[in-house]
Amino acid sequence: MSEPLGVALIGCGTVGGGVAKLLLEHPERLAARAGRPLALRRVVVRDLTKPRATRLSREILTTDLEQVIADPSVQVVAELVGGVEWARQAVLRLLAAGKDVVTANKALLATHGSEVFDAARKHGRAIAFEASVAGGIPIIAALTQSLAGNQILSLQGILNGTSNFILTAMTEQGQSYGEALKEAQARGYAEADPTLDVDGTDAAHKLAILAQIAFGMAVPLSAISRRGIENIDVIDIHFANELGYVIKLLAETWLHEGQVAMHVSPVLLRKHTPLAQVRGAYNAVAVIGDAVEDVLFYGKGAGMMPTASAVVADLIDLAIGRTQRTFQTLRLWSDNGPPLRVQPPASVKTRFYLRLVVDDRPGVLSEVAGILAQHHISIASVIQHEVPDDAEGQRVHLVIMTHSALTGNFRAACDRLDQLTSVASPSVHFPVED
Amino acid sequence: MSEPLGVALIGCGTVGGGVAKLLLEHPERLAARAGRPLALRRVVVRDLTKPRATRLSREILTTDLEQVIADPSVQVVAELVGGVEWARQAVLRLLAAGKDVVTANKALLATHGSEVFDAARKHGRAIAFEASVAGGIPIIAALTQSLAGNQILSLQGILNGTSNFILTAMTEQGQSYGEALKEAQARGYAEADPTLDVDGTDAAHKLAILAQIAFGMAVPLSAISRRGIENIDVIDIHFANELGYVIKLLAETWLHEGQVAMHVSPVLLRKHTPLAQVRGAYNAVAVIGDAVEDVLFYGKGAGMMPTASAVVADLIDLAIGRTQRTFQTLRLWSDNGPPLRVQPPASVKTRFYLRLVVDDRPGVLSEVAGILAQHHISIASVIQHEVPDDAEGQRVHLVIMTHSALTGNFRAACDRLDQLTSVASPSVHFPVED
Repeated sequence: MSEPLGVALIGCGTVGGGVAKLLLEHPERLAARAGRPLALRRVVVRDLTKPRATRLSREILTTDLEQVIADPSVQVVAELVGGVEWARQAVLRLLAAGKDVVTANKALLATHGSEVFDAARKHGRAIAFEASVAGGIPIIAALTQSLAGNQILSLQGILNGTSNFILTAMTEQGQSYGEALKEAQARGYAEADPTLDVDGTDAAHKLAILAQIAFGMAVPLSAISRRGIENIDVIDIHFANELGYVIKLLAETWLHEGQVAMHVSPVLLRKHTPLAQVRGAYNAVAVIGDAVEDVLFYGKGAGMMPTASAVVADLIDLAIGRTQRTFQTLRLWSDNGPPLRVQPPASVKTRFYLRLVVDDRPGVLSEVAGILAQHHISIASVIQHEVPDDAEGQRVHLVIMTHSALTGNFRAACDRLDQLTSVASPSVHFPVED
Repeated sequence: MSEPLGVALIGCGTVGGGVAKLLLEHPERLAARAGRPLALRRVVVRDLTKPRATRLSREILTTDLEQVIADPSVQVVAELVGGVEWARQAVLRLLAAGKDVVTANKALLATHGSEVFDAARKHGRAIAFEASVAGGIPIIAALTQSLAGNQILSLQGILNGTSNFILTAMTEQGQSYGEALKEAQARGYAEADPTLDVDGTDAAHKLAILAQIAFGMAVPLSAISRRGIENIDVIDIHFANELGYVIKLLAETWLHEGQVAMHVSPVLLRKHTPLAQVRGAYNAVAVIGDAVEDVLFYGKGAGMMPTASAVVADLIDLAIGRTQRTFQTLRLWSDNGPPLRVQPPASVKTRFYLRLVVDDRPGVLSEVAGILAQHHISIASVIQHEVPDDAEGQRVHLVIMTHSALTGNFRAACDRLDQLTSVASPSVHFPVED
């Protein structure tokens, strides 16, 4: 057995606590898999007195990052704190001090990937980041290694468990967004301030990382069109169901005529498709490669031990020496990717679901259909339910499924529709995938 | 860019042809991912004159394995012929000649894994075998690397696309086994002689490989209890559906009180579970690890390019040098695994579906229930549909779902039931999973 790999953790919250637990409770198992012991040498925390799930000895715990930087017995540091600026500084200093880095920090990679990867290359170190996307699901290994023979054609991910939990509760229990969010918070699936989860930012961070691997593109977050689930009305979930669809928050990117389209958006998916079946706080990523065709990866996208599983896999890969070879070969977040550009969202072609609240009087459908036609949008199906006789003259929901149309044309049509006096409230619309 | 990795293929059928196609049509892509060119130096075939999907130059094609063995410019050989004895000899000779080996040959690994892996270790070579299980799905990489921090608790696989295609057609179109098999053959999903696919042998080969990685056990094939789909009656698929289940051919292994249970069997799965949704010729593997919890991998389990994707991933891993490190560390099919034993099938506890064809007269249900009770099997639910008045006195289907019971007890009860004069034909039964 070779000499131990010295490990330090920065952060001992949910994920850090899980990693410490695995390292301390299963040293023999991990040593067998890694070919040498993984020795936990330091854990950097903010508060030494805070009670922790895993018992850590006083010599290991410290509040001082400098102790890790200065410790020659630490070769790998797992950065598990989250947040961008402090983490960025810490990672840069650790790399400069000759440590390899494991990180679960998607916000850091999505916003400063080039900087930290360049620093790692400059110092001859490696960065591993399996835990940054989809928790325990090994999607980073799949894209960097197992699917390496493929040109990736598309990636579709349910990458935010909070959003998927809320949408599932709205779909299966008919809850409102507010009720479902409260339940998610009560169960620990949503934070007190859920903004970054429900507005699509977290999914966009993860999508930027996946797009980097799949297409070699460093995508600025601002280039990812994104929409969250905060404004989804349960009535649209009902109409989608009637049409044979479910609504999922998808992070998607795909190749189209030499450009890369990408967005985070609620999307209508046919009920029988694999992604449509992903319920609750689970994550899934569906990938199409030109050789492998369609593959799907499914599992817990967050949580203490699933995410710790990914971090420990990275530690084992570093101990064995695989990560260093992958890292040197792939040159992620460098400037040598293919010259791909993000496709302008307006030029993306897709089908749409459109719901309007309209006056229940003759001529309205003709007016709406006319505007859609003027924008080259052809109608595939319409739902307008009969209202009771005594409710005549009131407002009704008009739901239209379009054929494939340019997003730019569709948006322009919606702008016109929203100005009609017979249309009572802003149009609601989502992309549709078959 | 480093010097090329010299590659030879043995076999240029479906999979070999796909590998040749990827290597010849996308050399730049593969060189970028592998850090050096993958140079196709030789392809060993049986018939030089046979037309091939991918154009191969005359200097590359040969019928003579010796040319590969003697060629110092070939460092890696992909064995893609199938069959056991010739492949075994070829692999042993290639390893002895200093070549690393990639293989898609599950029968070879399941029956001679220890011998070929020992030979590789003796000669300082590596064997990669991602394509041997579940085609394009990277389940070998997942188990050997991504889930390496886990103790695997269970594996459930739909590992035979032919069987799953047939069961799906029986379930969704109400076809008989014979009709569904014919359709599978017409579509190229089943061979003219489908025996090894439909009788569970192919799935058992793959299960033996997965159990080796998950539990470090070299399982003799004879220790895997196996049952195929050849005798499934569509009526059981209907009753399963009525009860909320689908029937899938599963290859399963799980840890139970320090022993490893394993079998290949048709199993009743609840409709909403992820594995139950796997349709047609797709494969899927659901894994539970003690840290990652439940993860699932899904994709094409066979076919030209999906399997080629797995072979090429192995070539890239060898080119980068990752496989060699994994291989040396894990010591698969060696004698140093934990001292686990296969759990005797009779001692496995599970729920059962039981269908009897019984005389439609008073006292029969009581007789059947009495025998089950004597064998400590408790009944969870019963279906016996009313027959039309004029059919009274005829035979009816009696379907019983049991609570969890010892397989040994259940089988003993079935033997007794089959001897009853009121039971018309042998009992039909399947394990049930919730």
